[in-house]
Amino acid sequence: MSGVLSREFAGYAGQSSMIRRMFEAGIKLKLEHGADKVCDFSLGNPDLPPPAEVAEGMRAIAREADQPFAFGYMPNAGFPWALELLAGELTREQGVRVEPSDVMLAGGAAGAMNSFLRAVLEPGDEVLGVLPYFVDYGFYAANFGGIFKAVPAKADFSLDVPAIEAAITKKTRVMLINSPNNPTGQIYSEAELTSLAAVLRRKSAENGRPVFLALDEPYRFLAFEGTAVPSVLPLYEYSVAVSSFSKSLSLPGERLGYLVAANSMPDKNVFMGGVIMASRVLGFVNAPVVGQKLLKYAIGKQADLSVYAKRRTVMAAALADAGYEFTSPKGAFYFFPKAPGGDDAAFVELLADELILAVPGRGFGLPGYFRLAFCVGEEVIRRAAPGFKRALLAVKQH
Amino acid sequence: MSGVLSREFAGYAGQSSMIRRMFEAGIKLKLEHGADKVCDFSLGNPDLPPPAEVAEGMRAIAREADQPFAFGYMPNAGFPWALELLAGELTREQGVRVEPSDVMLAGGAAGAMNSFLRAVLEPGDEVLGVLPYFVDYGFYAANFGGIFKAVPAKADFSLDVPAIEAAITKKTRVMLINSPNNPTGQIYSEAELTSLAAVLRRKSAENGRPVFLALDEPYRFLAFEGTAVPSVLPLYEYSVAVSSFSKSLSLPGERLGYLVAANSMPDKNVFMGGVIMASRVLGFVNAPVVGQKLLKYAIGKQADLSVYAKRRTVMAAALADAGYEFTSPKGAFYFFPKAPGGDDAAFVELLADELILAVPGRGFGLPGYFRLAFCVGEEVIRRAAPGFKRALLAVKQH
Repeated sequence: MSGVLSREFAGYAGQSSMIRRMFEAGIKLKLEHGADKVCDFSLGNPDLPPPAEVAEGMRAIAREADQPFAFGYMPNAGFPWALELLAGELTREQGVRVEPSDVMLAGGAAGAMNSFLRAVLEPGDEVLGVLPYFVDYGFYAANFGGIFKAVPAKADFSLDVPAIEAAITKKTRVMLINSPNNPTGQIYSEAELTSLAAVLRRKSAENGRPVFLALDEPYRFLAFEGTAVPSVLPLYEYSVAVSSFSKSLSLPGERLGYLVAANSMPDKNVFMGGVIMASRVLGFVNAPVVGQKLLKYAIGKQADLSVYAKRRTVMAAALADAGYEFTSPKGAFYFFPKAPGGDDAAFVELLADELILAVPGRGFGLPGYFRLAFCVGEEVIRRAAPGFKRALLAVKQH
Repeated sequence: MSGVLSREFAGYAGQSSMIRRMFEAGIKLKLEHGADKVCDFSLGNPDLPPPAEVAEGMRAIAREADQPFAFGYMPNAGFPWALELLAGELTREQGVRVEPSDVMLAGGAAGAMNSFLRAVLEPGDEVLGVLPYFVDYGFYAANFGGIFKAVPAKADFSLDVPAIEAAITKKTRVMLINSPNNPTGQIYSEAELTSLAAVLRRKSAENGRPVFLALDEPYRFLAFEGTAVPSVLPLYEYSVAVSSFSKSLSLPGERLGYLVAANSMPDKNVFMGGVIMASRVLGFVNAPVVGQKLLKYAIGKQADLSVYAKRRTVMAAALADAGYEFTSPKGAFYFFPKAPGGDDAAFVELLADELILAVPGRGFGLPGYFRLAFCVGEEVIRRAAPGFKRALLAVKQH
């Protein structure tokens, strides 16, 4: 007798995330060849140390760690003082009024997104995304009987609003976008978002229930050359933004994220009550307490952006010099070049032969491209440059 | 246009957990009357400070908090060294071989349980529990289209195995039990568990797929008067135990838990792969990194058990002296007396008039009882004693 997994999960076996698979292949290659020989661009694991305020906060928390309730429960949405801090910070960042009752601290942005979907999806509801997309979005929808559908972006990876409008049905409950975008580095403009909001408002009225706009924005702090990252909160009443401190504070392992709802949302308190309950009953209960306490010291701080800006320049030079076809990202820490020869899986294998780790575009639903995460030292990018050249030559000579 | 929640979640509105509601009512009463006037027995929020090793670990983590990857990602199941440590500790504790590949670190025991259910339930599958039960179990099953059904325990709150057998159908996928039990303090004996395992084995064969036995055991370390807490792992091949460090290390806010599968489970690696994937796609991604790192210092340590043993004696004396009907708990930190007069909600109101906070039995699916958590100072129990008397007298005089 087998059957230790549900039919759905049995079907996933062997289908582990390509990003994670490359991450784990990387560990193996490093053991074989030495960590300093492998150029690992596979995972968005920020390599910059957390800002100094994080260490300061950790010391302060350590000093109180022998006290009762040092790591105790708090209300499910988070410490009231932490929600106050977060609301203040978001008011500044989003350029719109955010109250403490508009926010929930969560177990990472992924935990916030799952809690949101748990609270709003009926079984069979559709979650629309944009192709290419972070592959776990599909699983998030499936967790609660939802169906994820991706609408292709335009050639420059901006939003194809008419295509989105055409894809919306009676079953569409959530439009889920990610800006600055992983993997493309695109940032959606205010004009795009405004026109998307108009479509969603019209479709909500037609459908007789809200189509939410959910913006996943953990890379908001990482926008280059002064590009603005517009907020969805002032543009659409049924909008939420979901984010985390994983990338900005180099804290991905601590799982500290949040959800913020548009202050203008009708029945907003009912909505937030549902999302907070979902976070509880999914087992998150609350965002990890150490992460929450760190906010007292580190909220609003971030890793040194200029380091990423420099790397972006170095990576762009290396790729251009080798002859790749790509656009420099407006934000986030990824390049998404075209795979020479067109077969992304084969090309990623060629790169691996050069001890360069990348993720094929099909890991984001879009074959023909590959993703390079530049949250690695500049010297790694420089060391990879000859390998990038040789891999491209190998394709051309084939 | 309303409809900001799914129909299911809209139905939950106002139905927040009674435990949480009492917790929040308690915060209000304390503001009104002063914290030292309120005797709060509502929430299992351990009041003992974490063992000294936790503070030591926090200082060590703080010293490295300015390093790259200090709070970085690790494999979804947890740091390999942490899984080694945990497997070693569980081998000792459970009296059975546990390998690192049998365990997953999770976002709390609740996160582990949700990940397990996500991986094994088909929509419409049944999860059987035992009445009274922790009310969130019902939500855990519902998260993934499952249906929770509770079989009444015997009068002494031990397992009614024939009743469980009669309740199992073709749809039954999981038998979920909690020992030491919240709210009853009961601990299931090896004989009960062995006879339950025999039933599940037979039903699994009949159904053509495994009926899992899941033991939720965060109170394992809290067994009084030398009562043994038998492990399910050696008794049944389709068993898992789920637990956390919330109670033993006074770390509930950090959300550090785990799942361990019977080493003897057929297709155990497929099963663990599914559970680990579920933990990722539900958004937990990994157990919080600070909690994981604390294991290096504090695994196997625990809060001072003798303190709880003493409180149990004091509480038993206060309740007996006042004339309540109850059994002293064998484990965990809860008393579950009969509600004088039979109406638990009304009686809990009477207690609140005495500034004593308790949770009505209907919060656990069993009206007619009430729960008192004794993770509070002895002086609180002593201070509550006259109030317990007066409340009981008020019922008798009515």
